[in-house]
Amino acid sequence: MPKRTTIRDVALKAGVSFQTVSLALNHPEKVADATLAKVQAAIRALDFVPSLAARSMRQIRTKTLACIFFGERASYDNRSYQIQDTYWNNVLQMLSMVADRSGYALLQRHIGGDPEQATSEIAGMYSAGRIDGMIAVVEKPAHPVLVELRKKDLPFVVFGTRDPKMPHVVQANEDACAAVVRHLHEQGRERIAFISGERDGHVNEDINERTRGFRRAMKECGLSVTRRWQLAGDWSMASGYRIAQLLCGQDDRPDSLIFASDRMALGALKGLHDIGVRVPLDVCVVGFDNMQMDEFSVPPLSSVHSPVLEMASWAISTLLHRIETGAWEDGAQREFPAELVVRDSSRIR
Amino acid sequence: MPKRTTIRDVALKAGVSFQTVSLALNHPEKVADATLAKVQAAIRALDFVPSLAARSMRQIRTKTLACIFFGERASYDNRSYQIQDTYWNNVLQMLSMVADRSGYALLQRHIGGDPEQATSEIAGMYSAGRIDGMIAVVEKPAHPVLVELRKKDLPFVVFGTRDPKMPHVVQANEDACAAVVRHLHEQGRERIAFISGERDGHVNEDINERTRGFRRAMKECGLSVTRRWQLAGDWSMASGYRIAQLLCGQDDRPDSLIFASDRMALGALKGLHDIGVRVPLDVCVVGFDNMQMDEFSVPPLSSVHSPVLEMASWAISTLLHRIETGAWEDGAQREFPAELVVRDSSRIR
Repeated sequence: MPKRTTIRDVALKAGVSFQTVSLALNHPEKVADATLAKVQAAIRALDFVPSLAARSMRQIRTKTLACIFFGERASYDNRSYQIQDTYWNNVLQMLSMVADRSGYALLQRHIGGDPEQATSEIAGMYSAGRIDGMIAVVEKPAHPVLVELRKKDLPFVVFGTRDPKMPHVVQANEDACAAVVRHLHEQGRERIAFISGERDGHVNEDINERTRGFRRAMKECGLSVTRRWQLAGDWSMASGYRIAQLLCGQDDRPDSLIFASDRMALGALKGLHDIGVRVPLDVCVVGFDNMQMDEFSVPPLSSVHSPVLEMASWAISTLLHRIETGAWEDGAQREFPAELVVRDSSRIR
Repeated sequence: MPKRTTIRDVALKAGVSFQTVSLALNHPEKVADATLAKVQAAIRALDFVPSLAARSMRQIRTKTLACIFFGERASYDNRSYQIQDTYWNNVLQMLSMVADRSGYALLQRHIGGDPEQATSEIAGMYSAGRIDGMIAVVEKPAHPVLVELRKKDLPFVVFGTRDPKMPHVVQANEDACAAVVRHLHEQGRERIAFISGERDGHVNEDINERTRGFRRAMKECGLSVTRRWQLAGDWSMASGYRIAQLLCGQDDRPDSLIFASDRMALGALKGLHDIGVRVPLDVCVVGFDNMQMDEFSVPPLSSVHSPVLEMASWAISTLLHRIETGAWEDGAQREFPAELVVRDSSRIR
């Protein structure tokens, strides 16, 4: 842990007595504006906020965790303003529920832009006692902000991205996608398309893992990968709708579509319905996430179940253990299996 | 505003000098355990946390808002652990996005149980400087905790429930439901069922408003309300599925189903599909919320659009105005219209 900043450090920096700093903190109205400005500047320069000291008194701990979305995942811009479900909305709810049951509130922030500024902002949230720990959501391993926060030994867990040098929790994406290919192959399917997801041209690490699983299993099953059937949607239902029609609206079409998310797969079911392609008879469709809607689509959608609750529970309890004892448990890295749930959209025999 | 608690009050309560309190706050390791315990007890009794004083220095404001779910709405218990979209997940995302753009983080908590304890806990969050303001989600007006917080003049806005004595933002539920009935009547439909939603037997205020709108419009259109067609689901897709089959799986059936949420209505589309009832030819279906999925169901679902973004923007900006200026704008109560979006599930002519 970095050495704790005290009001003596602030006083030294500001060139005033520590009694003046104390007065500025407790009775700012009694301090001259120029002096107050010097104290404030020193406080900001040192990331010092008085509740940092208070935090050493256990009973008045902050009891707040943050879930912070970094970089591309910080963007709200290409979301629709309609009610929609997304994987991340649900992750937030699960994290919040689990944190709540341990007496912690969950705060959410989206932080993009300059890594140095972001690092300073987040380090400030810890030192100000606004948060005790963080769940971090990133696109790729070794995010520069996390590398810096790790050096400061601030407690956080990366959610959903395999980051070898960081505490993290992930699902087994590669194995899951391979299992989908084997399932389709067992149903006699051979012309299999994989539709990944990207946002503004950015592909995240989960997608790379799913793509690897797809290619590995295609090879193991003796199937050849058709390049023009490997496309990327933008995670929206509308992109699934369009891509399904694009791929299946011609004679030389795939017999199976694997989508990297259920939202795209549900859009695809509708797209195929609208052009008269029968699911699963003509084309099988499989998604990822196992959303509740999958049981109510026509036909019900096969999907890889995301162990979101297990991941959220593990992430929060590992983080709280670190916060409360100062130590990480068992290497603080964990992978949960993600099982395929077969429904009518890929059941032929 | 209540008088600010200072470390002098804490010292008086603890029976120690204020220098001792200051030392306990800044260097607890230098204070005897028994003295520290007395100071801690006083701090908790007075809801005092040192950052309260610090907050008067504008630059180190908390910059955190809370969205708090009260009472029945605090329950996570009957939610599925599958990925699903709910109205409230989306409200949280919109609030978070709008807060974020103003430089504020959003924290979420679910608080049930004893009102006195809940009041003390939330008042403590304000006085500890953990939050600057709150968006409150309740089932009914005049929630006892809010009544108390209002007396303390703490800044909050009620989201989604018309609460005459509180700052609030709502959508025009009664008019919206009346518009749905008129739309169905214009399509020649007369046998209209309304399926409301309840959780553990609790009906919220929005549902009462929708029910009033339904009855008023039925009367205005000269249609009679059939009591056995007024049922309540539990907001789940499964309950919509079951109720649709229950109502329409017999000869003497309604020709239209209005559901209080899209989730129930989407379940109903699947339920009717599975027993061979044609939508909209045999039965029209209309939901509430205008979820993105509505465009991709078979057939696409007519639904009342919820102005969630407008409501979230208004709620946050009104709250921030109050926090930053100390005053409420324009009465601080606002209703947004909620328009019916007609799609194939209720389009006959």
